[in-house]
Amino acid sequence: MQDVTRWLARRVVESRPGDVPAEVLREAGRALLNWCGCAIGGSRHETVDRALAAVLPFAGPAQAGVLGRGERMDILNAALINGISSHVLDFDDTQAEAIHPSSPVFPALLALAEWRGFSGAELAHAFVLGVEVECRIGRSVFPQHYDAGWHITGTAGVFGAAAAAGKLLRLGEQQMAWALGMAATQSAGLREMFGSMCKCLHPGRAAQNGLHAALLAREGFTSSEQGIEAKRGFGHVLSTHFDPEVIVGEWGRHYELSSNMYKPFACGLVVHGAIDGCIQLRNEYGLRPDAIETVELAVAPLVLELTGKPSPLTGLEGKFSVFHAAAVAVVRGEAGEAEFSDACVQDAEVVTLRKRVRATVDDSLQWTQARVAIRLRDGRLLQREVLHPLGSLERPMSDADLEAKFRSLTAGILDKRGADHLLQLCRDLQSLPDAGVIARVAVA
Amino acid sequence: MQDVTRWLARRVVESRPGDVPAEVLREAGRALLNWCGCAIGGSRHETVDRALAAVLPFAGPAQAGVLGRGERMDILNAALINGISSHVLDFDDTQAEAIHPSSPVFPALLALAEWRGFSGAELAHAFVLGVEVECRIGRSVFPQHYDAGWHITGTAGVFGAAAAAGKLLRLGEQQMAWALGMAATQSAGLREMFGSMCKCLHPGRAAQNGLHAALLAREGFTSSEQGIEAKRGFGHVLSTHFDPEVIVGEWGRHYELSSNMYKPFACGLVVHGAIDGCIQLRNEYGLRPDAIETVELAVAPLVLELTGKPSPLTGLEGKFSVFHAAAVAVVRGEAGEAEFSDACVQDAEVVTLRKRVRATVDDSLQWTQARVAIRLRDGRLLQREVLHPLGSLERPMSDADLEAKFRSLTAGILDKRGADHLLQLCRDLQSLPDAGVIARVAVA
Repeated sequence: MQDVTRWLARRVVESRPGDVPAEVLREAGRALLNWCGCAIGGSRHETVDRALAAVLPFAGPAQAGVLGRGERMDILNAALINGISSHVLDFDDTQAEAIHPSSPVFPALLALAEWRGFSGAELAHAFVLGVEVECRIGRSVFPQHYDAGWHITGTAGVFGAAAAAGKLLRLGEQQMAWALGMAATQSAGLREMFGSMCKCLHPGRAAQNGLHAALLAREGFTSSEQGIEAKRGFGHVLSTHFDPEVIVGEWGRHYELSSNMYKPFACGLVVHGAIDGCIQLRNEYGLRPDAIETVELAVAPLVLELTGKPSPLTGLEGKFSVFHAAAVAVVRGEAGEAEFSDACVQDAEVVTLRKRVRATVDDSLQWTQARVAIRLRDGRLLQREVLHPLGSLERPMSDADLEAKFRSLTAGILDKRGADHLLQLCRDLQSLPDAGVIARVAVA
Repeated sequence: MQDVTRWLARRVVESRPGDVPAEVLREAGRALLNWCGCAIGGSRHETVDRALAAVLPFAGPAQAGVLGRGERMDILNAALINGISSHVLDFDDTQAEAIHPSSPVFPALLALAEWRGFSGAELAHAFVLGVEVECRIGRSVFPQHYDAGWHITGTAGVFGAAAAAGKLLRLGEQQMAWALGMAATQSAGLREMFGSMCKCLHPGRAAQNGLHAALLAREGFTSSEQGIEAKRGFGHVLSTHFDPEVIVGEWGRHYELSSNMYKPFACGLVVHGAIDGCIQLRNEYGLRPDAIETVELAVAPLVLELTGKPSPLTGLEGKFSVFHAAAVAVVRGEAGEAEFSDACVQDAEVVTLRKRVRATVDDSLQWTQARVAIRLRDGRLLQREVLHPLGSLERPMSDADLEAKFRSLTAGILDKRGADHLLQLCRDLQSLPDAGVIARVAVA
């Protein structure tokens, strides 16, 4: 496959809403509900406060709002902030290749919708295409690109934002190829930032830069038309492995959204197996922390690579500590946002148990799987193997699970009436005459 | 050397203006004059028109201006646009490692100065530090990083902008380390974009993102504190070679600005040897194009790699064609901005001669060197070897050369009085109480 940038541009430009299967469009609504919950739930995080403080003195006209808050600003800065807030809890959707598809794409689309009143059907269609583009490009360089240290949600996400925004803006094929080229040359984000506020800057910047790429292309700002596949393009410069066939294969038959996962726990999917196993044992045996001698985890190599921090000090660091995750799951029986707060990470009971958590690598385990063995002071050994944690494709969150997660994340920010209204809008996405209403209702 | 990010942050934060030798500060004034000329000369380019059209509907308060034009906007967008316009002609300063140091740094500093009235001495000092940071980081991964396909002006420039802006904003060591980490995770720009408008987006975005990194860090937005040297940081993810000793070596003794080069011709330094040789032969022998059989160039490998386009169609592409550069040098005896316009690249006389230009690689030549052999229809063979082209460190542009270049670039945009005033301000940089006056005077 040559000229994959232009091929992709043509597919996105030529796609009609009727081409997309109904169940894929329905999944776009589920993704939107999950994403709105994450953005609203994250909107009061100090990360967002600080980002806003650094943005507001320079922001443009009140074209779009920050979900969960009152501030209004230009669409580019709104996309940045909503991208940050929707990823700050690490609670947004994810794919097997570690791409969080919604957080770079929805902020760009929702800002455009608020500004120019695009319909819900248009927004859903553009979202589906954006997810296709970012996930396919991400898969074309996976896993070498990710293993090398790139945060693929940032590096691939900017393509998704550019393609989706470009679709809403009705770019032609030439402009779309330029927008994808501009995405390629702005592709950035390092895994070294994991555990700091900067991790969630990546989808924020991807949303903002992808949207800007589409706006620049619309004005005739040119780029290379082989930004993805050229010798010095994205695929070869940012990865030792690049397979363009992955980008084009099964186009229109396989949809990336059909392998989208929603997390029940407020941390990476890599830790879900351990949390799930700990909660199961805790609940079945009515475990209390002081009865526990050790918690022994067997996990895939990637788990310790990503979440091997033994002694996290902040909530953000706690998301990168399988030791904290297991301890808090046993102590509290939950692993929502509250369990990854600074206070909880520093909680004496959690810290005490955390020191008794051991983790070993088992190469035979997949990245979301885990075996948990809890040794009690009375000598008993309780064991649980989790091959398919809640939230995996084999055990997906139901609509009711997603609604409960949404209500939990928005509680204390939206009132009941606001939350009900927003829930309904996400369900009715396909028939909304103006999708901008979602952002307007999502304001506290 | 471990912890080079923090080491660098400390050096930048602790540096006092008195630490910097007078000749280095004087060079900052020369760099500013050259940069202002490039920004003003580039300000009417359609690339800037299109970028402005894509920015203005979203821009914030009138805090800073676009040089050479009347538009005013927030400092982040002003930094973007001035970064674009100052590189669009490919006429800005350059270092041996292909970094254009001024275009990512001055736009950030000048916008801050206009907004908050920093003195000329502060601006010059911050500029010197920004150039230290970006060039040392660039050299630490050179040449592998550049050879792999990264546009080092974008990838290294964002560090320079962050450090310089952070210095003006008086960041502490911790904040400065965060700003450098945020620069690392936004480092981007592909050489694939050369020949399109997108090339000059790179220093523009570097200026904007570096400035934003400093503003975010000031608000306490955290990043990794090992953004440069960590296993998954800039040095190892964006390059197969990283030598932190290059960053710390000779700090405070060797200044990067002392190896800064200013171009007499409106294209990459790689083509300067060929142009210089062609102009010399043309003038000495009074050559006319129709008397010429062939123009034979011997150049370094990098020359054809970067500027090997045999048949450019636009002015921008012409900058990446050593064939066009040699032809136009013979036909017109000049290689200023007019010689890299669309019209000149399509000019029949130039095109006819361009088809008679041959280029071969000679591994023994350095990247700015060239041998020119012009074969005439009457059988004569005229030869010239250029080891040190005008603009190289061995044959630098004098103050008078820089002034002439500035006047040529600003002609038709600034009136004589405005150009005189701006020239004087650049000369008096060290004593200006408010460096923002530079941007205000540089407006048409």
